[in-house]
Amino acid sequence: MKSIKVFSPATVSNVACGFDIMGFAIDSPGDEIIVETNNENNLQIINKTNIELPLEPDKNVTTIALKSMLEKMNSLQGFTVTFTKKIPVGSGIGSSAASAIAGVFGANELLEKPFTRMQLIDFAIEGEFATSGSRHADNVAPAMLGGFTVIRSYEPMHIFSIPYPEQLFCVVVHPQIELTTKEMRKVLPLEVPLKVAIKQWGNVAGLIAGLTTNNLKLISSSLTDFIVEPIRSKFIPGFNNIKNVALFNRALGCSISGSGPSIFAICENEDIAKKVGYAMKEVCNSILLNADLYISKINKEGIKEIKYEYPF
Amino acid sequence: MKSIKVFSPATVSNVACGFDIMGFAIDSPGDEIIVETNNENNLQIINKTNIELPLEPDKNVTTIALKSMLEKMNSLQGFTVTFTKKIPVGSGIGSSAASAIAGVFGANELLEKPFTRMQLIDFAIEGEFATSGSRHADNVAPAMLGGFTVIRSYEPMHIFSIPYPEQLFCVVVHPQIELTTKEMRKVLPLEVPLKVAIKQWGNVAGLIAGLTTNNLKLISSSLTDFIVEPIRSKFIPGFNNIKNVALFNRALGCSISGSGPSIFAICENEDIAKKVGYAMKEVCNSILLNADLYISKINKEGIKEIKYEYPF
Repeated sequence: MKSIKVFSPATVSNVACGFDIMGFAIDSPGDEIIVETNNENNLQIINKTNIELPLEPDKNVTTIALKSMLEKMNSLQGFTVTFTKKIPVGSGIGSSAASAIAGVFGANELLEKPFTRMQLIDFAIEGEFATSGSRHADNVAPAMLGGFTVIRSYEPMHIFSIPYPEQLFCVVVHPQIELTTKEMRKVLPLEVPLKVAIKQWGNVAGLIAGLTTNNLKLISSSLTDFIVEPIRSKFIPGFNNIKNVALFNRALGCSISGSGPSIFAICENEDIAKKVGYAMKEVCNSILLNADLYISKINKEGIKEIKYEYPF
Repeated sequence: MKSIKVFSPATVSNVACGFDIMGFAIDSPGDEIIVETNNENNLQIINKTNIELPLEPDKNVTTIALKSMLEKMNSLQGFTVTFTKKIPVGSGIGSSAASAIAGVFGANELLEKPFTRMQLIDFAIEGEFATSGSRHADNVAPAMLGGFTVIRSYEPMHIFSIPYPEQLFCVVVHPQIELTTKEMRKVLPLEVPLKVAIKQWGNVAGLIAGLTTNNLKLISSSLTDFIVEPIRSKFIPGFNNIKNVALFNRALGCSISGSGPSIFAICENEDIAKKVGYAMKEVCNSILLNADLYISKINKEGIKEIKYEYPF
């Protein structure tokens, strides 16, 4: 019996202007999952976290992705996945993506790496698809690859990583309210004015150039979303005030993570990130909005093996 | 009496996916204009080219821009501008932008540089506005700064330059048909499907990342326009065939320059650019479409002083 424990990072998708095409990984929070071979030729799930998870392999994103990988290999190997730590579900920071990549990454390591990280993304997308109904990769890709990633195209799938200033820190405030991705998709318009689309891709150009050329000022001016944030922010109590204190405390930018309700802020260093994070949390407290606060570096390496004591 | 001769490069705006936000300068063709102080406190125009140009200072983009600069300085200095070489008017490669920046750049040099290049762009935009009715900077900016430029935002105006692979060559084929910018604006939709806009900014992200990180493959896959080219290309006879031979001959990408009718192709070196250019021209010949062909490097330095013999 072989086993491995992996850390699978949370991710911020959309990144203000980059709706459906951009995402980045963060060092905290993350899923921690143990993947073990078993001799029963089946997939089993053990949940040691205090978060409710589907235990049937056909309903859990981790085992759905893993199954799609094993089918590709025509492998009958059985695996048991044990969740020991879980990103809150429905938080908007890539909880399902983190789980989707964890199983395939762990199993791939144990099977002596038949697939590249880029290939594993495809299997994870199958897991995301089965649970959310849409084939999106903007959380799966950065969780797998680390750093900032771009989905240039979905058909054919074309994902790439970009360099970024490694000093960057990220604040995530996760208000304890429920917004489903499905509903948050429905509130978006089917069409947008060409003029507004041009403003949006002007910022996309600025954000990519700012990240790749290490220009913090340019990153900051480009972190503006003219299309999605104005609509979705109405569903997050206190959003405008939370964002304003983030910017007032010198965050480079602040917007909704994924389809929310989490709000992220990108900061140029840890000190500023702490000030920004505490100020954002303070606003939540003042309006009696329960919220979790995470402050961490941008995650550089993506999902990785971590040590653990046996028996766990 | 002081004088200077300047070379002001042609420019390709839009660059496939970057409608209204991107442009780059090319080494050929360009305007050549002599700017001289005069003692008559007025602006005068001399045209030594075989292209028809407005000779009244209030109707010529060069002197309109120059006037707006002199007003800003409260200067009564007179200038005479002499056109000795002119980019074909209505070609879609920034003919008016090249002229708009030439007067202000030349005068600024003669007046010992009261303004930066970035400031001069504002005056040139005034010239563009007076003649075209729209305040666009996607030709003016690269003609002034050289290389690839991005207009991230118009209000407030935010222009920046990005690094790019200096090996790049550009082919321009200018079919002898007339398309006015105004009409070509009118054929565009006021709204676009959000799904299509997302595909477009995925390519914008890819193009900027490809240019700044020197990734020719990424540049090539990103040079696709889902919004404007499909509509405007219908007004250019043979467009699809011309584009297809460009790509077949290994151009990295090919699309409409500005609002047309010129067609540009970006190539990874001079040899390929020549093959691509001759093949594109061949297609024009085969359908009896008169066309000029230009093959040159991406212009690195933007508008510049050039030597000349006196008397010219």
